[in-house]
Amino acid sequence: MEVAAAAAPAPAPAPANPAQHPPGVLMKDLPGMPGTPSGLALRVTQLLLAAVSLAAMSSTSDFASVSAFCYIVAAAILQCVWSLSVAMVDIYALLVKRCLRNRWLVTFFAIGDMITVTVTFSGACAAAGITVLIDDDLSICSMNHCPSFMSSVAMAFMCSFSLSPSFILNLWAVASSRILA
Amino acid sequence: MEVAAAAAPAPAPAPANPAQHPPGVLMKDLPGMPGTPSGLALRVTQLLLAAVSLAAMSSTSDFASVSAFCYIVAAAILQCVWSLSVAMVDIYALLVKRCLRNRWLVTFFAIGDMITVTVTFSGACAAAGITVLIDDDLSICSMNHCPSFMSSVAMAFMCSFSLSPSFILNLWAVASSRILA
Repeated sequence: MEVAAAAAPAPAPAPANPAQHPPGVLMKDLPGMPGTPSGLALRVTQLLLAAVSLAAMSSTSDFASVSAFCYIVAAAILQCVWSLSVAMVDIYALLVKRCLRNRWLVTFFAIGDMITVTVTFSGACAAAGITVLIDDDLSICSMNHCPSFMSSVAMAFMCSFSLSPSFILNLWAVASSRILA
Repeated sequence: MEVAAAAAPAPAPAPANPAQHPPGVLMKDLPGMPGTPSGLALRVTQLLLAAVSLAAMSSTSDFASVSAFCYIVAAAILQCVWSLSVAMVDIYALLVKRCLRNRWLVTFFAIGDMITVTVTFSGACAAAGITVLIDDDLSICSMNHCPSFMSSVAMAFMCSFSLSPSFILNLWAVASSRILA
């Protein structure tokens, strides 16, 4: 977290108290935030999980007959586009060694993460409700593609769980910097 | 937000820079946080919405045959218990005029809100998936209690939407105070 400060030549008076930093400067690079290698790893994980969920659901022939399964496909596509976009920004920032500590950029990422985590999680829950209905309540799995439905739902849940650290860290970073600006 | 400071007699040197407050003191009472009248209003709203959702779903005779409907009933019960507990703490804090700015208390509320918002929202999504399946995809609403299912799902969604400000404000308060502690 302090790599940039350590690599730079030591400034004349080291600040003893972090509360005395000039306003608007102190937005710590927590691991998992945009522009960090762990943030990029989170994005790639989300992208892969959403892609696998999309592939598993699309591979069934009859997903279009159930609204919840269409919704999870749309949610997975949205998730792929969002994670890919942020991953590309992360790769750019890592390549040119720029930190993404801009307040508005982090706010934008936090809002985007909130929207995608809501959409992906709701799609996963709705599809899980239908899958449990088919499998446990009606026991008509033999007529349906239950394994594909289940793997798609599981991947969508894992995708939304891997999204929540990104969202919470971005929100945390915005809230932490707010008080000093 | 600055009412308390304005009502108190003016302190000798007004702090020019908020970053120079002593560490650990500055946790602002945002509207909607625990211990404020708007926070109490949010809790009462959540409690009422969860209770209506629970009542609407329980009034149907066959909800127990679908797992997702059982889950939304359990989620609504959990939500009622949580909102009632926090509302009682809020009422106590308002009556004795104590503010609930303790770091660990707000962290506890934020974690509890995160759990209940996840449970209530997932229950609403799962039940919504089943309701849409019954209503639109299979068109067997005449054989089922669609209006009750729909109103229960709508109330559960509104409950989770009214929970998210509480959760985000609590997380915001913890993150804001973190940097100064």
